[in-house]
Amino acid sequence: MSDYIDLTGAEQSFGDTDAQREVRENDRQYVFHSWSAQGAINPLPIAKGEGVRFWDYDGTEYLDFSSQLVNLNLGHQHPGLVQAIQDQAGRLATIQPAMANDVRGELAKRIVEHSFAGARSVFFTNGGADANEYAVRMARVHTGRQKVLARYRSYHGSTSTAITLTGEPRRWANGTLDSGVVHFHGPYPYRSVFYSETPEQETERALAHLRSTIELEGPSTIAAIILESVTGTNGILIPTPGYLAGVRALCDEFGILLIADEVMAGFGRTGHWFAFQAFDVTPDLVTFAKGVNSGYVPLGGVVISEAVHQTFDQKPFPGGLTYSGHPLGAAAGVATFDIFAEEGILERVRDLGERVVGPRLREIAERHPSVGEVRGTGLFWAIELVKNAETREPLIPFNASGDAAAPFNAVVAACKQAGLWPFAAGNRLQVAPPLIISEEDLVRGLDIIDEALNVADGYVGA
Amino acid sequence: MSDYIDLTGAEQSFGDTDAQREVRENDRQYVFHSWSAQGAINPLPIAKGEGVRFWDYDGTEYLDFSSQLVNLNLGHQHPGLVQAIQDQAGRLATIQPAMANDVRGELAKRIVEHSFAGARSVFFTNGGADANEYAVRMARVHTGRQKVLARYRSYHGSTSTAITLTGEPRRWANGTLDSGVVHFHGPYPYRSVFYSETPEQETERALAHLRSTIELEGPSTIAAIILESVTGTNGILIPTPGYLAGVRALCDEFGILLIADEVMAGFGRTGHWFAFQAFDVTPDLVTFAKGVNSGYVPLGGVVISEAVHQTFDQKPFPGGLTYSGHPLGAAAGVATFDIFAEEGILERVRDLGERVVGPRLREIAERHPSVGEVRGTGLFWAIELVKNAETREPLIPFNASGDAAAPFNAVVAACKQAGLWPFAAGNRLQVAPPLIISEEDLVRGLDIIDEALNVADGYVGA
Ligand SMILES: Cc1ncc(COP(=O)(O)O)c(C=O)c1O
Ligand SMILES: Cc1ncc(COP(=O)(O)O)c(C=O)c1O
Repeated sequence: MSDYIDLTGAEQSFGDTDAQREVRENDRQYVFHSWSAQGAINPLPIAKGEGVRFWDYDGTEYLDFSSQLVNLNLGHQHPGLVQAIQDQAGRLATIQPAMANDVRGELAKRIVEHSFAGARSVFFTNGGADANEYAVRMARVHTGRQKVLARYRSYHGSTSTAITLTGEPRRWANGTLDSGVVHFHGPYPYRSVFYSETPEQETERALAHLRSTIELEGPSTIAAIILESVTGTNGILIPTPGYLAGVRALCDEFGILLIADEVMAGFGRTGHWFAFQAFDVTPDLVTFAKGVNSGYVPLGGVVISEAVHQTFDQKPFPGGLTYSGHPLGAAAGVATFDIFAEEGILERVRDLGERVVGPRLREIAERHPSVGEVRGTGLFWAIELVKNAETREPLIPFNASGDAAAPFNAVVAACKQAGLWPFAAGNRLQVAPPLIISEEDLVRGLDIIDEALNVADGYVGA
Repeated sequence: MSDYIDLTGAEQSFGDTDAQREVRENDRQYVFHSWSAQGAINPLPIAKGEGVRFWDYDGTEYLDFSSQLVNLNLGHQHPGLVQAIQDQAGRLATIQPAMANDVRGELAKRIVEHSFAGARSVFFTNGGADANEYAVRMARVHTGRQKVLARYRSYHGSTSTAITLTGEPRRWANGTLDSGVVHFHGPYPYRSVFYSETPEQETERALAHLRSTIELEGPSTIAAIILESVTGTNGILIPTPGYLAGVRALCDEFGILLIADEVMAGFGRTGHWFAFQAFDVTPDLVTFAKGVNSGYVPLGGVVISEAVHQTFDQKPFPGGLTYSGHPLGAAAGVATFDIFAEEGILERVRDLGERVVGPRLREIAERHPSVGEVRGTGLFWAIELVKNAETREPLIPFNASGDAAAPFNAVVAACKQAGLWPFAAGNRLQVAPPLIISEEDLVRGLDIIDEALNVADGYVGA
């Protein structure tokens, strides 16, 4: 086995070019990557992570402003999470879903207690996509209806129903895998499709559009409306005033269930356990993953209302998976609740968002002609880049790639060059660092972005 | 937080009735279970697992003849797996899929090297269902065709495409979620739908049936044929002589890809890395999960042929997930390869299957009138129970529940009463203990089954 990597060391040492070469070679030779043309990528070998930082094998340090895929809410190698996993591995690494298990029940209890009035139980999954698959399945059986309404500019995962719910380009190459999905437009004041001039008008018109869609699709055919409480990858779109309450009212009027996808926005990202809690709304089903345990162990799930739970009291739920309620993932989830309390995570996210990020980004927006809009909440922000602030023409076309994406890629490269790993999506730099970030690191990261935006400014009017 | 369970102890102590009550209460109150009517179940709280045994809180010991959900190939709390998880948690619990990571690449390399000639890369998923979803997606893009042929009496998972591929009752309540799936019959000599009298005839006729299905569905519309190399939950159906080679030949004739679902049969269950390796066949895509790391961390994946890999060399693969190639799961996977080598797992599985299980089950079959057939390989066997050995009428009707299932449930209860946890499916007791089981424990378990079959005998001719 001399041709295998020695993985026994506590951590990789920097500057080990043999190790780096081997990691890179194995990756290029054997690992098939998500969403990629395999011949066109060259993944960066990572040697180490700690807190808000990670390092490649040359020792280059990156400030993680993406929390990996916006899952690492408690940062790299949080000692409390590491300990919880190590302890649980030593206690009982796994047991099948049909048994009762202490950590599984404990985590379900805490999630229910921190979600919404009327929440009853949790169905655990492996990640975000299957959480959405099963939420839709519950809604279909509960209502006896088949259609699900989902928004454009959304991401809900990649298994067949989840990718069909998705309202952005990653869906395109997949055709329509679930024939019961219909898309509609949500509020997006900066690029209103409703010709509205105020956020209030955007709400009113977006709700009228949704009502019209419901009426024309047939209310009696619609099981659920699914939406990200705060849209993540597709632009940190915060619901306009009264929008979510209006969607809830339409759901009530027509007997439709409301599914809140909190996979990215949940578990503290917006300074609340769940992002919908900042709004006047109660969903019927809530899907989560990522932040529940910072992705240290694959885990997702669905929080289920009492009414939906009752539907499956005597009727079997037609779904399941081998790793539902996995003890290792659950232990890291329980630890997450403890750490959030001990470190006052929710309070500091709200504070840092309001006191540091918001003001600084608004100030940045004023100085940089390439910044069309900044928006966000908590530690969840978008900087939308434009070629022309008047026309709002994006810095690069929608779904651009290759040469067409070069101006935006240059901004991202400038960030990385300066030691910041941003969350880049479309024509947006998104700010989503681990929630444990210090004010100093936060400011340092925003400084780097400020500087990198000079590159974007160079394309304005070009 | 005094109303939360204390999870700090290294392990639960037996006879702690408060702890037991709390685990049970949290489960009944907060945990939503797979495939169940929530009001009709009473999951057993498990306090501890070790090797081939687990214990409830009263200290009752069970010999695990189901390997949980046939995933725990290396048994409960294998020190090597526990250590690998603890080490990796301390090194780097997670990093996003877009980076290169040492354990991820290392595991991909080992899987490729142990799978089939012409295998190129591995796409990692969280479990078995999504592995099948993505294998089908690759086949569809690669061939430009939409339909997938799957067998009756199969289980492929529960997300939308996976449950539609499934050919047994768990699919029923879900309707047709993927409109591109068509089911066909495979060989099953004991209950031949082809009126055949020998295994060879069964092969010939099953292949003629498949050819006819392909021709009538339209060869140019069919992307893939998916099958469990050895059917698991639906009966440990071993391919009849030449069947898999015949399916491969049909695939070649019509430009169809062959997907081998090795989620349950793979990683040593049949005494080979992959079950198809005992047959004269090379698949294009192989899906796996469970045994890859004994389910200690959720992990699954697809092994991809060079030809399919090349399709995605310049064209992006339209799928992905946050936890693809999760380092914690991968570390347990790498350890699995080491442990298999150190403990000679494959050799001992073949030996125990041929020398101990096979002969003993055949002897049991001769003595018990309720045993219609025993069949299997390695540590993967089924005992099919009948009311009448002549007519082969099953002990309970297909998909029976409630009172109709009582005779079979009585046999299962007798096993549990005697300290054995069997894998029960339909009218079958299936034998699938951890692969590390000692000969002594194996014989003890078979003794218990032998005894419990007296209960089944009581229903013969009734
Ligand atoms: C809002 C949202 N929903 C669902 C998902 C899918 O989660 P997963 O990648 O774990 O399947 C994501 C992933 O980014 C997400 O952001
Ligand atoms: C053959 C087979 N395929 C797929 C699956 C689905 O795996 P998972 O439960 O991890 O989704 C299973 C699970 O039992 C299986 O036995």
